[in-house]
Amino acid sequence: MIIVMSPKATPGEIQTVSERITELGYEPHLIQGVERTVVAAVGRDDKSPLQAMETMPGVESAMPILKPYKLVGREAKGEDSVLDIGGVKVGGEHLAVMAGPCSVETREQILGIADAVKAAGAQFLRGGAYKPRTSPYSFQGLGLEGLEYMAEARERTGLKIITEIVSVKDIDLLVEWADVLQIGARNCQNYSLLSAVGDSGKPVFLKRGMSTMIGEFLQAAEYIMSRGNYNVMLCERGIRTFETSTRFTLDLNAVPVIKSLSHLPVIIDPSHGTGHWNFVTPMARAAIAAGADGLMVEVHAQPDRAFSDGAQSLLPAKFEHMMSEVRKIATAMGRKL
Amino acid sequence: MIIVMSPKATPGEIQTVSERITELGYEPHLIQGVERTVVAAVGRDDKSPLQAMETMPGVESAMPILKPYKLVGREAKGEDSVLDIGGVKVGGEHLAVMAGPCSVETREQILGIADAVKAAGAQFLRGGAYKPRTSPYSFQGLGLEGLEYMAEARERTGLKIITEIVSVKDIDLLVEWADVLQIGARNCQNYSLLSAVGDSGKPVFLKRGMSTMIGEFLQAAEYIMSRGNYNVMLCERGIRTFETSTRFTLDLNAVPVIKSLSHLPVIIDPSHGTGHWNFVTPMARAAIAAGADGLMVEVHAQPDRAFSDGAQSLLPAKFEHMMSEVRKIATAMGRKL
Amino acid sequence: MIIVMSPKATPGEIQTVSERITELGYEPHLIQGVERTVVAAVGRDDKSPLQAMETMPGVESAMPILKPYKLVGREAKGEDSVLDIGGVKVGGEHLAVMAGPCSVETREQILGIADAVKAAGAQFLRGGAYKPRTSPYSFQGLGLEGLEYMAEARERTGLKIITEIVSVKDIDLLVEWADVLQIGARNCQNYSLLSAVGDSGKPVFLKRGMSTMIGEFLQAAEYIMSRGNYNVMLCERGIRTFETSTRFTLDLNAVPVIKSLSHLPVIIDPSHGTGHWNFVTPMARAAIAAGADGLMVEVHAQPDRAFSDGAQSLLPAKFEHMMSEVRKIATAMGRKL
Amino acid sequence: MIIVMSPKATPGEIQTVSERITELGYEPHLIQGVERTVVAAVGRDDKSPLQAMETMPGVESAMPILKPYKLVGREAKGEDSVLDIGGVKVGGEHLAVMAGPCSVETREQILGIADAVKAAGAQFLRGGAYKPRTSPYSFQGLGLEGLEYMAEARERTGLKIITEIVSVKDIDLLVEWADVLQIGARNCQNYSLLSAVGDSGKPVFLKRGMSTMIGEFLQAAEYIMSRGNYNVMLCERGIRTFETSTRFTLDLNAVPVIKSLSHLPVIIDPSHGTGHWNFVTPMARAAIAAGADGLMVEVHAQPDRAFSDGAQSLLPAKFEHMMSEVRKIATAMGRKL
Repeated sequence: MIIVMSPKATPGEIQTVSERITELGYEPHLIQGVERTVVAAVGRDDKSPLQAMETMPGVESAMPILKPYKLVGREAKGEDSVLDIGGVKVGGEHLAVMAGPCSVETREQILGIADAVKAAGAQFLRGGAYKPRTSPYSFQGLGLEGLEYMAEARERTGLKIITEIVSVKDIDLLVEWADVLQIGARNCQNYSLLSAVGDSGKPVFLKRGMSTMIGEFLQAAEYIMSRGNYNVMLCERGIRTFETSTRFTLDLNAVPVIKSLSHLPVIIDPSHGTGHWNFVTPMARAAIAAGADGLMVEVHAQPDRAFSDGAQSLLPAKFEHMMSEVRKIATAMGRKL
Repeated sequence: MIIVMSPKATPGEIQTVSERITELGYEPHLIQGVERTVVAAVGRDDKSPLQAMETMPGVESAMPILKPYKLVGREAKGEDSVLDIGGVKVGGEHLAVMAGPCSVETREQILGIADAVKAAGAQFLRGGAYKPRTSPYSFQGLGLEGLEYMAEARERTGLKIITEIVSVKDIDLLVEWADVLQIGARNCQNYSLLSAVGDSGKPVFLKRGMSTMIGEFLQAAEYIMSRGNYNVMLCERGIRTFETSTRFTLDLNAVPVIKSLSHLPVIIDPSHGTGHWNFVTPMARAAIAAGADGLMVEVHAQPDRAFSDGAQSLLPAKFEHMMSEVRKIATAMGRKL
Repeated sequence: MIIVMSPKATPGEIQTVSERITELGYEPHLIQGVERTVVAAVGRDDKSPLQAMETMPGVESAMPILKPYKLVGREAKGEDSVLDIGGVKVGGEHLAVMAGPCSVETREQILGIADAVKAAGAQFLRGGAYKPRTSPYSFQGLGLEGLEYMAEARERTGLKIITEIVSVKDIDLLVEWADVLQIGARNCQNYSLLSAVGDSGKPVFLKRGMSTMIGEFLQAAEYIMSRGNYNVMLCERGIRTFETSTRFTLDLNAVPVIKSLSHLPVIIDPSHGTGHWNFVTPMARAAIAAGADGLMVEVHAQPDRAFSDGAQSLLPAKFEHMMSEVRKIATAMGRKL
Repeated sequence: MIIVMSPKATPGEIQTVSERITELGYEPHLIQGVERTVVAAVGRDDKSPLQAMETMPGVESAMPILKPYKLVGREAKGEDSVLDIGGVKVGGEHLAVMAGPCSVETREQILGIADAVKAAGAQFLRGGAYKPRTSPYSFQGLGLEGLEYMAEARERTGLKIITEIVSVKDIDLLVEWADVLQIGARNCQNYSLLSAVGDSGKPVFLKRGMSTMIGEFLQAAEYIMSRGNYNVMLCERGIRTFETSTRFTLDLNAVPVIKSLSHLPVIIDPSHGTGHWNFVTPMARAAIAAGADGLMVEVHAQPDRAFSDGAQSLLPAKFEHMMSEVRKIATAMGRKL
């Protein structure tokens, strides 16, 4: 932590700051500048108590130096993590594709889509049984019935099942039925849920919140890993900006940024990220070219009749086309799909 | 819902859209424009199925007309709601002030602050016993022990207790100990938590998420009210923008905007909103002048030693000064403090 | 500038960084941390060459310490600046109010509004003769004819004239006709225009760009002051965020933030900031309570027939009501209107 | 334009709105909804006067339907535009690459970089002679001397010259020396400059402002085209968001969005967009995979000694590597580099 003193700070104020740093177990280093003095606090660097020194007389600001996560960081583990989800790899040479409807609606719907996305090359079937909806009056998901249909689809196709958990009270049920637990964007910083999935040991698919800074996103992953669960995938799915021509602004910069900071696999969701089906394929290609380890894509046989998110869902035939487009980019990148 | 057809839409495509609108139980109205045709769907206007029509051939976009909330809206209830929390009113002529530390740290700390904020004119004591922290390695709150200290402070001062709930599993405990349940910004769209506090019947203090649009914020409140719990306060506490001179951007525009759309009381939190103690008093004054119904402010006897959020906490003497400043504005506004 | 070395930086890399700092005329100070080394560069701190050191091997990041402006800063001048515009003071005890239509449309229009805003207590008449419009097909202003009408209004009412300059080629004309030159938000970082108004010596009303950080805003003002023109007013008029219920997000936090960094007067424009006339009065009150030195407000006798910005314009009677509301807040703040 | 009436609007208010629509030369269509009435105004749809109807009694909001640009739009021209800049094509099968330093610093610097980027496959040499700098104390460019060095580099390598125009007063000079005039992000909505480059007839490279919505960006291009200059390239270079791990947030979604709305070529600038050299290559690959027509990249032989933007500049060897990476993606996309 670097404590920047005000130009008008008195020697006594600088002295008090140094003593406080020592008291907190750090070593103070004074740097006398031309206009102002800076005090560096050398040590473990736990942010909170040092940050609070901003309120001390003569202090202008406090700037952290160390990264606030450990297990998630590249410094803890240099090489990329490759997860093994019942034999399917995420990270490494092979790209992972998760596809399916926003919501599980009926048995026929999910079985039909499962067949289609399997045929096109996906390894995971996505589908929501418990839905977090902006309006309390919107369809909230089929619950257990939805999970049963998903399991039947898994049996039939061999696809792994990924589905969202919205409450700690559903954890036992979802651990039993799903292969991967998804944490949605609105729960990215729901720390009690993060701790619960961390304890469960199940692979976790963590979506970045729509206003979560990358440093905070990595700390959310650290919640899961600090419970001993190292099977974590990170998913960028669009952030909130002023631009309204897309539903969110898919932030592909997150791919190289996270890759530089963390060893965890990064998956991109161009469906939520753009909100319009006709932007999904170009952004899926771009995601892989940026270095992403996989894609999550919404597919629906009748998007105009979907219970939710129809506008951003691909028809099975369009998904197949997307896969052939993405495959060319994957090959150019030296990866397999 | 207004369905805007592409300029190249064929008569057949327009026909199909009209039929689909009828099938969904709405009445289609065609408006032949100079450049394009628009189809209005008249009816109840449940957003999802109509929005999904964007994927139909020839459709350019679908624009909702109706507001997606009911109980929360001014149209449901013209006059301002005034809540009664054990005899303390929120909304109406009297301004409500909630003050206290970010976290309950020790018995002495919370009792001392309670005395100070009571003396300065607050009606509610805030303090976190269960803390949602960005880092898993930061102090996570005292839990039940913290609630016991809060209750002792209530006994001693008569202040009402407001504290945050971070997990549905804590609900019974918090309903027992607290007067008001706070939903933090990161849980603003945690729908299972919203439903749980809705069912509890306890007064709820709902904070706007840092990237929650006002329409979504009102729908989050609708989750609570749709469970029959009408004791809801809305709190603006800063949104995420590009500006970094403040921790968040306190959006005071939310006050007149929400007042125009909803009858619920609006409280402003200038401590989280700005992140720096020296901006708290001017923004507290501005909040009341904008028409807010109250304030939530962080107060700590030793901000530079606070376990969390020290940089934005006021010393008791500075809080007292803030109250005297705010009182002048309240008087000018014809309100009481 | 603080140069943060990577944990894997070699002693040789740290040595090279130190030598480069010396070469650039700064003094290097090494701080050996637990996880990484930090090198402080002590000196004048011209940002660019030091920032570029981020590309050197072993360097993780470079963090500036000093503020990049001088004349604008509180450190250069402790007390608040009070401008004198032909006898009208801006800054200090008296609040300044600039009011008028977005565009000068006709002689009758501007004379009528001038009479009304003068009667209600404004000291400045605003009105655009050269309009920066988003669409090339929108009304672009009356030009010189508009300035002549403004001058006639000044003669008749004694109001000072403030009008926008959109191009360096208009500078001589506008210096001749106007009392204050306005730089609009879209030109906030148009440095050739800033230099030109700096050279002109005329009082300048500088609007913050819709995505201009406060540090950049102050540097834009520094452009003007570095040309020897110290008559600068700063205006916050709304920033771009994800929220769409207001046209922009009026950032009142800018008032205490700028007041803490700079001695220049701060004016708030709630018309552009909110984009809807019914939010103007509450935000005008809030601006003064936050500590602003004045207001710029759009007034039009027939907002529904205005050539531009009608939706955010107040009728003269509503402006008069706004002034009476703001006067109460001004009194509570110990200021005069 | 759709005028949404308030649920409490009286028949008289609806009548007045209809009459006003007729008066403005549009045809009113009433749609009686369950909760509220909507009035559609059918006609040319010039936004301003209809938008101002929001201030009429009983009106809740006014929503535009038509796109506010014409020449720029896909509806005006279905196939992609291919520009011919002295024999070099922009748009179509071949990708265009513009590379060079942020600022022209010395003759040796620019000639050396020109040789290097030519050898690596670029067709355009970028370099600023007139620099828009955030601080008035930063290096402002070599001016005419810089243009002369650029011209010498053109002679020597055959590269086309692209350089920024920051003021209308430089237009004659720049038209004489440059092949393409660049409008920088901070001048994206500097309408007098847009009109001037429109009148000049020279090819224009228009950068999106850091808070410019795509609809506004296309209208800025319309300013140029409405003057009869159809040689316009659009460049996305990063928008302002809350995320700070990149200097801006490069918005690659802009590629498919603009391609769906306009026929103009789209170029991506990953140097400014990310602000860090190590993110440039992945985002350059992603840009091409998203469908961009080319790249603008900053290259410097000694980034750590660059006068400006060193942290985001590639060394010539790294640029060559970037080109080889991008070439693979281009091939996968069926394009040439």
